[in-house]
Amino acid sequence: MILTVTLNAALDVTYHVDALRPGQTHRPHAVDVRAGGKGINVARVLTILGEPVSATGLAGGATGELLVRRLERDGVPARFTGVAAESRRTVVIADPVAATGIWEPGPTVTPAEWARFLALYAELLAGARLVVLSGSLPPGLPVDAYAHLVEAARAAGIAALLDADGPALLAGLAARPALVKPNATELGEAVNATIETSEQALRAAHKLRAGSATTVVASLGPHGLVAATPEHDLVATPPEPVTGNPTGAGDAAVAALARGLLRSKGWPATLADAVSISAAAVAAPVAGQFDPDTASRIRDGVTVIRRPHQLT
Amino acid sequence: MILTVTLNAALDVTYHVDALRPGQTHRPHAVDVRAGGKGINVARVLTILGEPVSATGLAGGATGELLVRRLERDGVPARFTGVAAESRRTVVIADPVAATGIWEPGPTVTPAEWARFLALYAELLAGARLVVLSGSLPPGLPVDAYAHLVEAARAAGIAALLDADGPALLAGLAARPALVKPNATELGEAVNATIETSEQALRAAHKLRAGSATTVVASLGPHGLVAATPEHDLVATPPEPVTGNPTGAGDAAVAALARGLLRSKGWPATLADAVSISAAAVAAPVAGQFDPDTASRIRDGVTVIRRPHQLT
Repeated sequence: MILTVTLNAALDVTYHVDALRPGQTHRPHAVDVRAGGKGINVARVLTILGEPVSATGLAGGATGELLVRRLERDGVPARFTGVAAESRRTVVIADPVAATGIWEPGPTVTPAEWARFLALYAELLAGARLVVLSGSLPPGLPVDAYAHLVEAARAAGIAALLDADGPALLAGLAARPALVKPNATELGEAVNATIETSEQALRAAHKLRAGSATTVVASLGPHGLVAATPEHDLVATPPEPVTGNPTGAGDAAVAALARGLLRSKGWPATLADAVSISAAAVAAPVAGQFDPDTASRIRDGVTVIRRPHQLT
Repeated sequence: MILTVTLNAALDVTYHVDALRPGQTHRPHAVDVRAGGKGINVARVLTILGEPVSATGLAGGATGELLVRRLERDGVPARFTGVAAESRRTVVIADPVAATGIWEPGPTVTPAEWARFLALYAELLAGARLVVLSGSLPPGLPVDAYAHLVEAARAAGIAALLDADGPALLAGLAARPALVKPNATELGEAVNATIETSEQALRAAHKLRAGSATTVVASLGPHGLVAATPEHDLVATPPEPVTGNPTGAGDAAVAALARGLLRSKGWPATLADAVSISAAAVAAPVAGQFDPDTASRIRDGVTVIRRPHQLT
C-alpha cells in the first residue's frame, strides 16, 4: 500500500457559470465538490491505476469531515487527523473562457494536533510500502515537518517521495527522501537559477541533490521530465506538446513515479509512465482525471534518453 | 419571543481581495463567514434591538451544522431541523470596486424532513408571540409551505409576517398572514404591474390584499416604505436617500415591522422604525449590521403620512 500524506487538504469547489461578470450575482448551473490537495490528488490517480493506496493528513472542522467523506465516496481509503480549525476551500468559478480561483488560507494547526497526527502516521506506516508527502504546510506546523515524516518513514524501512516547494522542500531535503519532484519554477527558486532548458534543469537538479542519495525529478510542463538520479541523468519527452488543463498534471506524474519506485520498474519505464499519465491528465476535461487509453497511446511515443552524469 | 423561520438558510462567505481578476488565482486577505438567509438576518437584527428571538428552519449537512454554530456564536438562539443535503453557500468576492456573488442552489428537502420540521415548528410556536417567515423555499418543499406555517401559527393564536416572492408569496397569501413585505419589484411581479411611484405601489398593494385582513408593506428602496393596511394607507419617507450596501436592508425593515406588530406600536411609529433601521443598515459597512445611533438620528427626520384608502 502507498500512503499519501496531505497536511493542507482542501475541499475543491467549482462553480460552472455561463460567464463571470464582476459586480453581478450568478446562479451556477452546476457545482462540483471534491476532496483536494496534492496528496489526495495523487491518491485518486493511484486508485485509477489500480494501486492499493491509503490517504492521510489533517482535516479541519466540518469542511474536513466533508472532504474525507467525499474522498471515501471516490473509493479512496482515508484516515485523517481532525483539527479544530476549518480546512481550506479552493473555489473556482469556471466559465467557457477562463477559470478564476479563490484560495482560502489553511487552518492553523496546534502542536497537540500535530502530535496526534504523528501517532496516526506511525500507525499507518506499519501497513505501508512507500509514502508520498505532497503540498504546502498549513500554518502552525514546523517548517521541517516533512523532514520528521521522512525520518519516521526511514525508521520504519520505507522510502519517501516529497513534492513540496520553498522552505518546506529545502527543510525536507535535509532528511534525504528517495525522490523529490519540483516543477521548473520550484526547482529554479530552490537553487536560485533560471530554468528554460532541460540542461539547465539537470544542472539545477544536481545542485539540489548535492551528491546525496536523493533523486530529483523536475517537471518541465509540456516538455516532459528530467531526472537526476545518483547513477544517471535522464530526459523524458512526450511525442508532442499536449494542450488542456495542467491542474493536477504534476500530481499525476507523482503517482506514476511512486508506482514505479514501489515496483522497481527502473527509471526509463517509470519516467515514460509519468510523462504519459501526466500528459493524459492535461488532455482530460476534468482536472485530476485521466483516460488510461489516452495515457497508453501517448506512452508509445515518449522518448527517454539516459546518459552518465555530464553536468556535475 | 419572536420566532424567525428560514427554510433555505445559507452560509454567507465573503472573500476580500485586492482586485477580482477573471482567469487569475486569488488569495483573499480576509474571509468572513456567517449564517445567512433572510429569516436569520431578521433574527440577528432583532437581537441587536434587544428583542427576544429564536431562529428555526432547515439546516443541511455539514454546512448546516456550521451555520447553526455561527448563529449561536452571534448570540442568536437556534433550533433547526437537520436535512441530509448540504445547505447552500452564498459566496461573495468583494474588492474595493464591486461585490461579485455566486449563489448555490438550496438543498433538496424530502417529505420526511419537512414533516420533522413541522413537528419542531409546532413545538416552538408554543413559546412564541409572533412568527416571521422569510425567504425562498428550497427544492422539494410544496409551494404552499408558507400557507401551512401561517395556518399552524393561527391555530396557536400567533400572527405571522411573510417576506417571500413569486409563487411562494402568492400561495402563502391564501392563508392570510397578518403582514407581507414585498419590495417594489416583487410586488410588481405579483400583480403584474409596473411600480415607479408610491401611488403605484399602494395601488398594487391593495390589489395584493384583495380586501383581506392582510397588511401589505412594500419597500421602495431609498424612497422608504408604503403600507396598505385594512384601515389606512401610509407613506413613510426617509429624510434623504442613503447610499451604501442595500444587502440586508429589507431584512432590517422586517425586523422592525415584527417588533412593531408585537408591541402594538401603531403603524406610524412602526413604519418610522422600519425606514430608519433599514436606512441605517444601508449606511453600515457590513451587510446586515446597523448602528442604532445612526438609526435614531435618521428616525428624527422620517416623514409618515397617513390617509384613508384612496386608491381602492
